[in-house]
Parts: sequence; structure tokens; C-alpha cells
Amino acid sequence: MQLSHRIETLTPGGADGWEVFVKSKALIAEGVAVTELTIGEHDIRTDPTILGAMDASARGGRTGYAEVPGIGVLRDKVAARITERTGVATGRDNVLITPGGQAGLFAAHCAVCDPGDAALFIDPYYVTYPGTLRAVGARPVSILTRAETGFLPSEAAILDAVTPDAKSLLINSPNNPTGAIYGRETLEEIGRACDEAGLWLISDEVYDTQVWDGTHLSPRALPGMAERTLVIGSMSKSHAMTGSRCGWIVGPDHAIARLISLATHTTYGVPGFVQEAALFALDQGSELEERIAAPFRRRRALAQRILAGQNTLRMLPPQGAMYVMLDVRATGLSGDAFADALLEAERIAVMPGESFGQAAAGHIRVAMTIEDEAFAEALERLCGFAAGLAAAKAS
Amino acid sequence: MQLSHRIETLTPGGADGWEVFVKSKALIAEGVAVTELTIGEHDIRTDPTILGAMDASARGGRTGYAEVPGIGVLRDKVAARITERTGVATGRDNVLITPGGQAGLFAAHCAVCDPGDAALFIDPYYVTYPGTLRAVGARPVSILTRAETGFLPSEAAILDAVTPDAKSLLINSPNNPTGAIYGRETLEEIGRACDEAGLWLISDEVYDTQVWDGTHLSPRALPGMAERTLVIGSMSKSHAMTGSRCGWIVGPDHAIARLISLATHTTYGVPGFVQEAALFALDQGSELEERIAAPFRRRRALAQRILAGQNTLRMLPPQGAMYVMLDVRATGLSGDAFADALLEAERIAVMPGESFGQAAAGHIRVAMTIEDEAFAEALERLCGFAAGLAAAKAS
Repeated sequence: MQLSHRIETLTPGGADGWEVFVKSKALIAEGVAVTELTIGEHDIRTDPTILGAMDASARGGRTGYAEVPGIGVLRDKVAARITERTGVATGRDNVLITPGGQAGLFAAHCAVCDPGDAALFIDPYYVTYPGTLRAVGARPVSILTRAETGFLPSEAAILDAVTPDAKSLLINSPNNPTGAIYGRETLEEIGRACDEAGLWLISDEVYDTQVWDGTHLSPRALPGMAERTLVIGSMSKSHAMTGSRCGWIVGPDHAIARLISLATHTTYGVPGFVQEAALFALDQGSELEERIAAPFRRRRALAQRILAGQNTLRMLPPQGAMYVMLDVRATGLSGDAFADALLEAERIAVMPGESFGQAAAGHIRVAMTIEDEAFAEALERLCGFAAGLAAAKAS
Repeated sequence: MQLSHRIETLTPGGADGWEVFVKSKALIAEGVAVTELTIGEHDIRTDPTILGAMDASARGGRTGYAEVPGIGVLRDKVAARITERTGVATGRDNVLITPGGQAGLFAAHCAVCDPGDAALFIDPYYVTYPGTLRAVGARPVSILTRAETGFLPSEAAILDAVTPDAKSLLINSPNNPTGAIYGRETLEEIGRACDEAGLWLISDEVYDTQVWDGTHLSPRALPGMAERTLVIGSMSKSHAMTGSRCGWIVGPDHAIARLISLATHTTYGVPGFVQEAALFALDQGSELEERIAAPFRRRRALAQRILAGQNTLRMLPPQGAMYVMLDVRATGLSGDAFADALLEAERIAVMPGESFGQAAAGHIRVAMTIEDEAFAEALERLCGFAAGLAAAKAS
């Protein structure tokens, strides 16, 4: 029996960018010791106090259907958080709670793109972006950025990619995989382009608490942008709650009203006990968020020190998020080939830049998601491996 | 800013069938005492032992990303359950764990329908069906059944509705709202129609543990049907875990493989601690399921006794699920008008049949979801109210 064209072509050629991750998981399952630096997941678990709040909520009776838009108190809390961060008045009616950021990305695009419409996104990109746009039935159109200009998009590049059927532009700052943070100037360029081309801006801000250099600015904060922006947020990265699948979409109330109806027909809400755990976590304020971000801040400094001691790999120091991007082109290998060889020779798993698009070709993404000493040791081995390749190439 | 046509037209005219439910919730919020018989939710909470398993799982470290297809042990458990119930060998690769049955319905239709394709479903239907099909981008095509023939669809009626672009037929047995259970003969007719028309069969079996009369049969069990059937299951109704949002799709492995990729791009999995709670619940076997179904079995008997004592309302005794459908046409009112008047006069909230389509017009659906004595009392008042209307009409 034939499946839909949409689902058959979600991941063209079957490649979805997770190949090294899958290979490394298989090795680990065979009992091989692999240093796993592919996935964006903390090396700590969700805080026990948050789990305590979840248990209390469930035992307190929050086990029935929760309100589809999200429980009121959590929507209010998210709204207050966004108001505080953007200066734009945000209320409950501007917030839909979603089962994670990925579900938010999918739903937001459903809300603004019809099948066949063009959906723009910035390359390099988070691995699932093109497939998410295809799942919506939209046509993914990438906008290339360059390592040399910090992987930042320009107004001209966005407008070059716009076609009459373009409906949306997806951005991600702090950026996965590059670590770039879009400053006010970049966001203003993006805003002008969206305004000129009549695009919705979908702003994936799930790393907004992981800022090492500069400050996070949401495009919702810019004049006139709240009306055309859907912000995607999540508890995953900020509160080490990746497995809880709890995120949100913030946007104009008329869009959220429709998105609630979409949620009724696609997910029927998020567990109430998960939402009450999220509320508890957000109520802990910035101290908890800083504690969860701290290891990545330390490891970024470690990476800077280690990378300074060699001259094969070029690092664009991440301004935010939990990864370092390394340019491996001096080794003569592509990111794909380097990641494969590294896994083979050193049993270190990293994501090839090619998994994140064309613009990141010749790079690898190293997740800073293991304990400091092991991270430093792995990075040193990685540098040594790269140096060996470069030397062999030179000789 | 314009939203997508798809999301703007999800619920044409803005009506989504939940109007009485919303009205009753608003009254309750104002402090008015309303007997709430609209929603399909148990009057008990999730069992504390299941919540204990969830807490143990979370505190044991299951707080990171769970495998997107579902954790292996739960997929195995669901597969074993389906094998046992259908006699058709079912393995892990035939199972995708979804964040609830509604998400399963949406994903299954995404897998088999492209935008613009026709998706067939049986009227009366669960309220979200047409919107779910529209959310997928498909064109909902209803197949009318009649109260007089027990709301069962026939091969001829299905084939009459088939157009060249028809890709799927959605059925639901035990049925919400009618309580009908499709027997072997009906399922064979459905199977022949699907075979002749080249349709996928999407079988919503979330009430499969609530069987009062006859036996539940999955179309997956019929010869040749496993290859064209996607079964939707859920922990919600069988284990009083509505709020946990944990369900599954069972189908051919090639379809499940694609659905896993869709899940990567739409939900990114289900919380691991929820899945381990579900596994624990399923491991309790049929004793727990029967305990959870028992109140509805008792209340169905109560309803039969009460309805036997009057002659205004006609009841089709439900063979399964947690509702009774009552024909209110003898009162001279539509289901909508009756439900409105009942809420107004008696402060009893029920769903009008019209919320479930054309075929259920002139009916109301009463959820058997409050404690026995209160249920009997409400049903008696409801019958008295109907008798009063009928008498006024006659005079």
C-alpha cells in the first residue's frame, strides 16, 4: 500500500542528518566505549525538586485532560516571562503550550504555510528544520550564510530567496549549530525583509538562557514585529527538561486562537502534571536557569583554551547554546568524512556540519554535553586527530 | 497578517462541536452547579500505583529525550498485546508510540493522505475527526449511517462515497458516540470496500477495553487487512490515563518507519517517564482494565433500567464505550436545542448529537462519567425534562 507523497519525501534519500548519532548509538549498544558529543542534551537530569512538583501534581489529581491551550497559570507565567524579556505586553491569549519545541515549530508553520507555499530558513540550521517544513507540506527554501560573516543572514540574502509564494522565515538565535546570537542590527535587517516580503517570522528561541557573549534579543521586542512573529520556546534546554516535552508558541492572539484549534486536532494538549512541573521550574527564576547553563559556559572556556593551543581547527567561539562549531577543512576532509573517521579511530561521536546544511560543510559540531574533564580530554584527542590528518595531508 | 487557509478553515464557521461543553465550563467557573455529562473522562484519577511507577522512572533518570519511536520495552508490550488480540504477529517495528490517540489519528492520516486527497469517515463520528482530516490538508468525506440500522456502515455506502482521490477510511469501534461495536460481518464489508477502492483503513480502537455486549474485533485480525490497516490505540480510556497523552499507531513496518520520521519532525517523542508508567499499567493485565471499565458497565445497566421506565426517549443500548445515545426527537427538539434547554433548565450538560454529525441529529450523547447515584439522578431528571417537553408538544 502506497503512503502519502509527503511522508515518503520527508527525508529525501532517507538521510536525515542523524547518521553518525545512530552509528554511535549502535556501537554503544554493542558495548563499545564511545564519547558521545552529538546530541544537545545536558549531562544532568531534571532537578529532583521539579520531579517532586510533577509527582505532587499527579498525586494531587492532575491526571485528567488538561486544557488544550495549556493550563492558565502556566500560560500566564510564560506570558509574564516574555513580557519581561521583550517589553511587549504579552498575555495568556498570546500563549499556547505545546508538547515540546519541535511540536511548536511544526504547528507554527502549519499556521502560516499552506501546502506548496515556500518556507524560508537559514542555513546552517537545526537538523529537523527542512523535514519539519516538508511535514507541513511547505517547500523548504534555505538562505545560505557564511562562516566568514559569523553565519549571520542579511536582508539582501533573505529578499533574494523570497518568491511570491513565500510565507515564512524561520530563524534560531542563539543558534544551533553555530552558536551565533543575532544582535539588534541583524534582527532589524530580518524584520525589514519580513516586512517588505510580507513574511511571518518564526523565531526559535529555545537556547535563550544559554548566552555566553552579548545578549539575547527576541524579534518580538522590535517595533512592529510582535504582529508578525511566532516565538518558539521550550523547557528542554533552559531547565534540563528535554524528556518532558513541554514548550510554547507565543504570538498574536488571533494566531494563537487558531493554533489552539489545531492543537485540539493534533495533540489534544500537554499532560497537566508536566505543565505544573514546568510552572514550578519557571517559578525558581533565573538562579536555576543559570545553574543549568553554567557547565556549558565553563566548557566553552575550556574549548577556547584547548583550541588556542593548536592551529589545525578553526573555532568560531559560540556566543550561545551548548555546542562548538569547528572548521575542519584544513584536514582535507569534509565534515562528514571527518566525523566518520573520528568515530572510527577515536570513538568520539560528533555531528558533521553537513547535517546542518551546505553552509556548515567542512565543519563539525561538538556538543559540550559531557563532564568537564572528559570533555577536555575528548577535545584534546579530537585536536590531535585533526593535527595528524593535516600533517599527513601536508607530507 | 494572514494565516494559512488550512488553519483558518479547520473549524468552518468557528463551530467545533464543543459549544455546550464550553458553556457548561463557563457556568461552573461562575460557581453554578452543573452536572457535567459531556466529556469522555473517568470520574476516577490515574491509579496511584501507576503514578508511583512514573515517579520512580523520572527519579531513576528517565528525564532525557526518549527514543522517538517509543521506548523499546513499551513498543514490545503494545506489540504483544496486539498480537494476542488479533492473532497477527506484531513486533516492535509495527509500533509507534504517540503523545495520545489524537496525535495518532493525525499522524496516521498524514502518512496516507496528501493535501487535497479525500479522507472518508463514518457519521456519527468523534467530534475532532473532520478537523483532524482538514488539519492534515485532506478533504473530509462523511459516510452516513442510520440509527435504525445501529449506526453501522455498509460496503455499498462506503463505495458510494469513494472518489478517485480517496485514500483512507477512518472507523471507530467501539464507537464514540453511538456505542456500536462493529462485528465480523460489518468489518468484512469494510475490508472488502477498502480492498476494492484501494483505501487505507484507519481503525480507532481506543475503547477496546470497554465492551458491554459482543466482543471487540480489530480489522487488523482479518485476512489481508494488516497490510492496509493502521490501528490507533491509547492508554487514556483503558487505564484512566487521559491526561498522560500516551497512545500508539500499529501498522505495517514500512508505514511505521515513515511515521517515526514524521514523529521526529512533529513531536520528537513521548516523555520516557510517561512511557514507563504506561508499561507498568499494561503489565497489570486485564484485572486493572476491568476495574476501570466496571463503573461504565454498571451505569449502562442503570441507564437501561431508567430508560425502560419512560417512553419519550429512545435508547440504543451501547455495546461499548462510556456513553449512551438518546433519541430526543419525540420532544420536538433537535439535539442542539434539547442540550441547550437541558443546560438552561436543569443545569445538566450533555453533548448534542449534531456535534457528532448529521446522522446523530435529534440525539444527545450522555457520558456515563459521574458517580452512579448522581448519574442515575441526573438521568431521571433528564427523562422528566424530556417527558415535560413531549407533553407540552402534544397539548
